[in-house]
Amino acid sequence: MAGNMIGKLLRLTTFGESHGTGIGGILDGFPAGIEVDLSLVGRDLMRRRPGQSHLASPRKEPDAVEFLSGIFNGKSLGSPIAFMIRNKDSRPEDYAHLENLYRPSHADYTYEKKYGLRDHRGGGRASARETAARVVGGALAKMLLNKDNIQVQAWVSQIGPIQAAVQKDKVTARKVEASFVRCPDEEASDAMINFIEGLKASGDSTGGLITCLIKGVPAGIGEPVFDKLQASLAHAMLSINAAKGFDFGSGFEAPAMKGSEHNDAFVKDQTGKVTTRTNFSGGMQGGISNGQDIYFRVAFKPVATIQKDQDTVDREGNPVRLSAKGRHDPCVVPRAVPIVEAMAALVIADHVLLNKISSVL
Amino acid sequence: MAGNMIGKLLRLTTFGESHGTGIGGILDGFPAGIEVDLSLVGRDLMRRRPGQSHLASPRKEPDAVEFLSGIFNGKSLGSPIAFMIRNKDSRPEDYAHLENLYRPSHADYTYEKKYGLRDHRGGGRASARETAARVVGGALAKMLLNKDNIQVQAWVSQIGPIQAAVQKDKVTARKVEASFVRCPDEEASDAMINFIEGLKASGDSTGGLITCLIKGVPAGIGEPVFDKLQASLAHAMLSINAAKGFDFGSGFEAPAMKGSEHNDAFVKDQTGKVTTRTNFSGGMQGGISNGQDIYFRVAFKPVATIQKDQDTVDREGNPVRLSAKGRHDPCVVPRAVPIVEAMAALVIADHVLLNKISSVL
Amino acid sequence: MAGNMIGKLLRLTTFGESHGTGIGGILDGFPAGIEVDLSLVGRDLMRRRPGQSHLASPRKEPDAVEFLSGIFNGKSLGSPIAFMIRNKDSRPEDYAHLENLYRPSHADYTYEKKYGLRDHRGGGRASARETAARVVGGALAKMLLNKDNIQVQAWVSQIGPIQAAVQKDKVTARKVEASFVRCPDEEASDAMINFIEGLKASGDSTGGLITCLIKGVPAGIGEPVFDKLQASLAHAMLSINAAKGFDFGSGFEAPAMKGSEHNDAFVKDQTGKVTTRTNFSGGMQGGISNGQDIYFRVAFKPVATIQKDQDTVDREGNPVRLSAKGRHDPCVVPRAVPIVEAMAALVIADHVLLNKISSVL
Amino acid sequence: MAGNMIGKLLRLTTFGESHGTGIGGILDGFPAGIEVDLSLVGRDLMRRRPGQSHLASPRKEPDAVEFLSGIFNGKSLGSPIAFMIRNKDSRPEDYAHLENLYRPSHADYTYEKKYGLRDHRGGGRASARETAARVVGGALAKMLLNKDNIQVQAWVSQIGPIQAAVQKDKVTARKVEASFVRCPDEEASDAMINFIEGLKASGDSTGGLITCLIKGVPAGIGEPVFDKLQASLAHAMLSINAAKGFDFGSGFEAPAMKGSEHNDAFVKDQTGKVTTRTNFSGGMQGGISNGQDIYFRVAFKPVATIQKDQDTVDREGNPVRLSAKGRHDPCVVPRAVPIVEAMAALVIADHVLLNKISSVL
Repeated sequence: MAGNMIGKLLRLTTFGESHGTGIGGILDGFPAGIEVDLSLVGRDLMRRRPGQSHLASPRKEPDAVEFLSGIFNGKSLGSPIAFMIRNKDSRPEDYAHLENLYRPSHADYTYEKKYGLRDHRGGGRASARETAARVVGGALAKMLLNKDNIQVQAWVSQIGPIQAAVQKDKVTARKVEASFVRCPDEEASDAMINFIEGLKASGDSTGGLITCLIKGVPAGIGEPVFDKLQASLAHAMLSINAAKGFDFGSGFEAPAMKGSEHNDAFVKDQTGKVTTRTNFSGGMQGGISNGQDIYFRVAFKPVATIQKDQDTVDREGNPVRLSAKGRHDPCVVPRAVPIVEAMAALVIADHVLLNKISSVL
Repeated sequence: MAGNMIGKLLRLTTFGESHGTGIGGILDGFPAGIEVDLSLVGRDLMRRRPGQSHLASPRKEPDAVEFLSGIFNGKSLGSPIAFMIRNKDSRPEDYAHLENLYRPSHADYTYEKKYGLRDHRGGGRASARETAARVVGGALAKMLLNKDNIQVQAWVSQIGPIQAAVQKDKVTARKVEASFVRCPDEEASDAMINFIEGLKASGDSTGGLITCLIKGVPAGIGEPVFDKLQASLAHAMLSINAAKGFDFGSGFEAPAMKGSEHNDAFVKDQTGKVTTRTNFSGGMQGGISNGQDIYFRVAFKPVATIQKDQDTVDREGNPVRLSAKGRHDPCVVPRAVPIVEAMAALVIADHVLLNKISSVL
Repeated sequence: MAGNMIGKLLRLTTFGESHGTGIGGILDGFPAGIEVDLSLVGRDLMRRRPGQSHLASPRKEPDAVEFLSGIFNGKSLGSPIAFMIRNKDSRPEDYAHLENLYRPSHADYTYEKKYGLRDHRGGGRASARETAARVVGGALAKMLLNKDNIQVQAWVSQIGPIQAAVQKDKVTARKVEASFVRCPDEEASDAMINFIEGLKASGDSTGGLITCLIKGVPAGIGEPVFDKLQASLAHAMLSINAAKGFDFGSGFEAPAMKGSEHNDAFVKDQTGKVTTRTNFSGGMQGGISNGQDIYFRVAFKPVATIQKDQDTVDREGNPVRLSAKGRHDPCVVPRAVPIVEAMAALVIADHVLLNKISSVL
Repeated sequence: MAGNMIGKLLRLTTFGESHGTGIGGILDGFPAGIEVDLSLVGRDLMRRRPGQSHLASPRKEPDAVEFLSGIFNGKSLGSPIAFMIRNKDSRPEDYAHLENLYRPSHADYTYEKKYGLRDHRGGGRASARETAARVVGGALAKMLLNKDNIQVQAWVSQIGPIQAAVQKDKVTARKVEASFVRCPDEEASDAMINFIEGLKASGDSTGGLITCLIKGVPAGIGEPVFDKLQASLAHAMLSINAAKGFDFGSGFEAPAMKGSEHNDAFVKDQTGKVTTRTNFSGGMQGGISNGQDIYFRVAFKPVATIQKDQDTVDREGNPVRLSAKGRHDPCVVPRAVPIVEAMAALVIADHVLLNKISSVL
């Protein structure tokens, strides 16, 4: 209820404040007997981690995850998988000046209005540090999906005004990871890097778009009415810090299309399998997968922390000037790629499990 | 679990197939003591109803809702409010030719893959007729919000390529309802009507955009992490038939903005109240309302049912030609306005209740 | 949340007040493809119905159930199964004298304290009439269990001071239904009938015990920790009106036993199957079925409505004398047999579904 | 879903296997602003801990709990409170002989049937060690209840055949804790201690009864229909390891009572407050508290681990003789007292929160 759990059958609950003892989570409902490869967890955590390149914040977090339960002899037990990452490199004194004021477009003000008090150090519970726990859960969900040959791959498709031009089904993990900004279009990638360097110099920040493609989902996954697969994905994506929008398939271009253009005709492919001639549906019809590739986009706003002085108010409502200080990462979108993948993997895995009880036929 | 319920504390469960005995729902968790004005339910059902103008499908559904429980002497009892709308004007023979084939971009194929069988008459459970039950639930939720002076108003902001230009906080219910297409920009409204008439003549269809504005939500409503207010709204909106995308505040324009432009500075207004200079946040920061207007957009695809022959396959996967027949509504977006409002009202009311237990301070 | 729904995957939500428009429910999560035999629903409703014998209340309720959705061509669709029973034979004027006072050991006082208002007619939402909806849901759950050859059978094992002596695994439906009081021990049955007739004459009432036996549950059904199978059963049974206690296996006799007596040794039976020598565990160990018969007991208090004057207070707290009037059923325990079965069937069916996603092994 | 979470608004999820890295939990939905006294957590953990007296198992577990999140400057933040207790003193080699066989009346067999594999060391997830996490959650729930002056007190009312005779509302924490076996009847306490010593010598074990009394719950707490307060309590109590039965108020004695004896007449007390002349209802009517003391009993079976050789089978179903070895605690009922209290506190606190949104009146 309190917003810290996601999923119906495969449920991730996360905990932790940015500068408390630690962060972590419990993944419950993970079936017994799945082989757990902890190196894959470490790999995704590394992709999310700050300080991967000269572009990003210099904060060093080893993000060493400790598994506390639910795994025995390399296999899942069917019991909750709990894990924890201790907070290190915390410099709470960096945040003392924020105790009594609200950073613009951060959650300081809203948390205080909701709870009546807040942990002001580094955003507390609202910090994006929480997403490390999502990446751990997502890496486990990917292991479940791998059994069914379902693959989740996201990449950066826009940063600031620079858009990538790629053919979605040709994007590979190798191409994505080869780019500092996780953009598989090399030319766009270079332009994005330049753009971010410019922002860093000027103390400003930018947002971006992430596209995610999911291959291998069989037809029939998803629930009707309120828990349509796209509704679950939208929920998960809009729960990511700084996300501003979600669309799938034709998305925000659909309104200007005609039905005769937009409808995806069913056809038989060479192997005799039913497929669709186009895929404006983004792989989902009526909330349920149709066997085609699922794809969607997530829009992210520019980072709220900038190296410029800003106007705000203090607790008493008096105008104050917030001066720039501390660490600064002008664009977090490349680091959000594994988070988008993690949330997508959790959603798809949950729906794969939900579907096992839909029918006796 | 099975996708037919939405909400955490205020929970709407809907039931019914398009051509079964009836549709309806149960709204549970509605607090005792709320005055229930059934005429407001009828008003919103009328707004959603087919056949409101010459532009729409001629199917006549009186949509007479019968309340079965939960209301006593004009007030809510705190027990479940159940309601039912009997199906009438059903002509199942219109659908006999669809029993063994799949309409493009409808849910026929995906439902059959999921369940192993389906009610092929008019889309069965996947029919947009189900949304009448959402409108009933939403009308009740609005009564709960009215107590706190929270107002939900949606309108059509785009149909096909035609975009409205309005100042969001000046839109009134009167202006919206004065337009056949629920677009408060008169000029755009006329162009939209012309555009839809053209599509009707050619047997084609179109999509559109709906914008929704929520006034009066106090600061502090929403949950952190996974149930951010925008995540709950995105979930609810993407659960509406034909919805393709959701964004709030700066939305899909945020990626191209700079942090220094996008950040909403906190300022003190003339009355001494804390407010923000801009509202790119769309009224929500860190998933929690900040007291500013909440606004978001929902993109809808063109109606999948068109008056043109289309390619598809039958149950055995053989190519077949689906010939145009039956009733046809070239644009359902105006009728989706009360549905967007209903889902928004349900989400906000649920979060208002959730917030009552956040803090003892 | 509001207490009107039970189940995790197979979820029954009920609605309705005793003297409102009707009562009913939605059974959601019922898998597609199950053959639905509506006559079995009618049969169980008939068993629950008042006025089955001269012993019971003369109120005649035909309890004609109307199914509104979820069933097509005799099979479940996988969508919600909604149903309704209209209230008839309601004589609200019988209840006018109760509007301002609280019947002893009824829920009048507590509902008013909770909600601030109540429907005083016949107990409103607190009336045992609500259990008719449970019986409908339970009858459907039995159809799901039948596919796996799981059989649920309950009977009356005590009324007032009179206890039945039966061998649990020899009890048959025929023997239970042959008795007016649903007690398969003929001698005890006769004594119970005499006892109830005596109470009827004196205007008093009695309680009783119901024993329930579930055969055919395979080993491995149930969840660990908080949702142990016995915990789910206890929850379901204590949710029945007038239930006062629950125990399973050795139950309240366990405290006085020694471990060496109580432990159920595992042995190999003639067919080579693992079984246990005794069954003090009542078929469940660690919250999970072990393949032996599951059995439990539910204690019911005497009916609170009696034909004797009683002391109580009115809304202002003034002492008043509640005079006996209206209809009176001295013992409802025989009618609770199908309710216990229904709740047991719902719980077991839910756990059978839950178990399908426990393991990939 | 997977059984590791309890509660609707105040939700405790526990994790951990007996001999894994650690055990712990997340308490979510705990309101912000509650003062957290960690010494009270330590006190209740000490009461649950093995090895408190010469009667119990000599295993030494310091049970040092580490709080990871959700508390800041001594107050709850409204975010999840995560905590962990590392496993120590584990001697997994003690359990090697159990890898391929099933201990009678333990969960070894059922877990293996459910999951296809198990952690055989000390019962794994089925171990009563998990209940330490419940005690932590319960101690926090008590702090929430203390704000409303609600007090939860449990005690041992029977061990083996020896029953205590106490006046429920005179029992104090001091009297309970003064007894090695947590029985406030001194004479019975001595007899119980003698009885347990005898069992220890003979290598056998016993069960017992715990009675729990909750004072200060105002009228109106609890939900109708399926989540009656007694149903939630029964669920929570039957989820405790070794619990066999639950009853409240008149409980299993109710069946033999007459309505005229059993009904609790409402009367006005000296202060003008509405009260009841008797309390056979155990403080709950229609599932909702009536302002009187709530009381209930929980029956526990004898400990399954005994110091005697027993018959069982191995994984292949072959008969084997399980020889007595390892540590042995002949009666765990006194240690279950804080567990019963913890579960009761969690249930009542959850319902207190649930009630805050029942009504606007």
